[in-house]
Amino acid sequence: MDRFYRANFINCLTGFKSPVLIGTVNEKGEENLAIFNNLVHIGADPALIGFINRPREAAPHTLANIESTGIYTVNHIQMQFVQQAHQTSAKYPEGVSEFLKTGLTSMKRADCIAPFVKESPVQFSMELKEVVPIRFNNTFFVIGAIRDIYLDPEIIEEDGCLDLQKAEIITSLGINRYYEVKNSLKLAYAKP
Amino acid sequence: MDRFYRANFINCLTGFKSPVLIGTVNEKGEENLAIFNNLVHIGADPALIGFINRPREAAPHTLANIESTGIYTVNHIQMQFVQQAHQTSAKYPEGVSEFLKTGLTSMKRADCIAPFVKESPVQFSMELKEVVPIRFNNTFFVIGAIRDIYLDPEIIEEDGCLDLQKAEIITSLGINRYYEVKNSLKLAYAKP
Repeated sequence: MDRFYRANFINCLTGFKSPVLIGTVNEKGEENLAIFNNLVHIGADPALIGFINRPREAAPHTLANIESTGIYTVNHIQMQFVQQAHQTSAKYPEGVSEFLKTGLTSMKRADCIAPFVKESPVQFSMELKEVVPIRFNNTFFVIGAIRDIYLDPEIIEEDGCLDLQKAEIITSLGINRYYEVKNSLKLAYAKP
Repeated sequence: MDRFYRANFINCLTGFKSPVLIGTVNEKGEENLAIFNNLVHIGADPALIGFINRPREAAPHTLANIESTGIYTVNHIQMQFVQQAHQTSAKYPEGVSEFLKTGLTSMKRADCIAPFVKESPVQFSMELKEVVPIRFNNTFFVIGAIRDIYLDPEIIEEDGCLDLQKAEIITSLGINRYYEVKNSLKLAYAKP
């Protein structure tokens, strides 16, 4: 298989995923913003989320900044700014802010050195817990703890679930397809 | 926060995810089938996929079977059998087949000891590479390599991407919400 064909094919096999923008700063305070679609829920208590960072030579800035400062932000994406979000996947040199290049708006909040994306209706800050090297392909499993969460309380349902459809959050497939969701079905807790 | 409220809330923060059925057998050949929604793409070459398995006391069978046999299957879900798929999350005793309890159809294929789900239009077999314990909450990051893939060639696009919308594969949110997708947007490879 051709390299890009194979990347598309294998990437799609994990199905629909949540694309998010991860915001960081380096030691000089220069901002970085990058789209990731490989977030994974690890546990609710403590509240832990992981993501896969590609090899350092392919995607160096986000990982280096997280290792350097210990802090990053996660910002969900709507269709109305998906083109700008996708553009952050272009390989800009270190020190070039993807906020400036894409027109997305950097937003600082109290007690967080890393920038949020103002356009995003669901944002949270993370604190690095551990970077686990994956020896098979030089990627990294980055584990972090959720610190502060910013979202419209109106999307919080009675049972604590978030109505991300109402917040117009999108899902993604492979490395370059984005979708809205429809036809929500909620099922009861399953018992034998 | 109440335990279930918190679980729903935190689980939703990772956004839309792909729910899949993981099929395994134990050493006696007894089948197990369980729904997971925390798959993550690790890399395309080698083709690696990870998932989070909850602590052994909460979700013992899938992990024990994978450790015992080294083999498991991943089967994507359509809305037409989501209720049966969701029902596999009920806590059945070891040795009780979720296939029998839910009415989903077990299907064996050559060179794979683990069962596939016949109803699923996108299936693949996996070979265990490593179980990484996550010390913060006693979960496990299970890393596997893709072995064989079974799907309708008609959903493979020119660039290798899979049209999972055409295959009617669903996405999920939190632990009990399922959605179809709409309004696909495909963007070009981003360059600076």
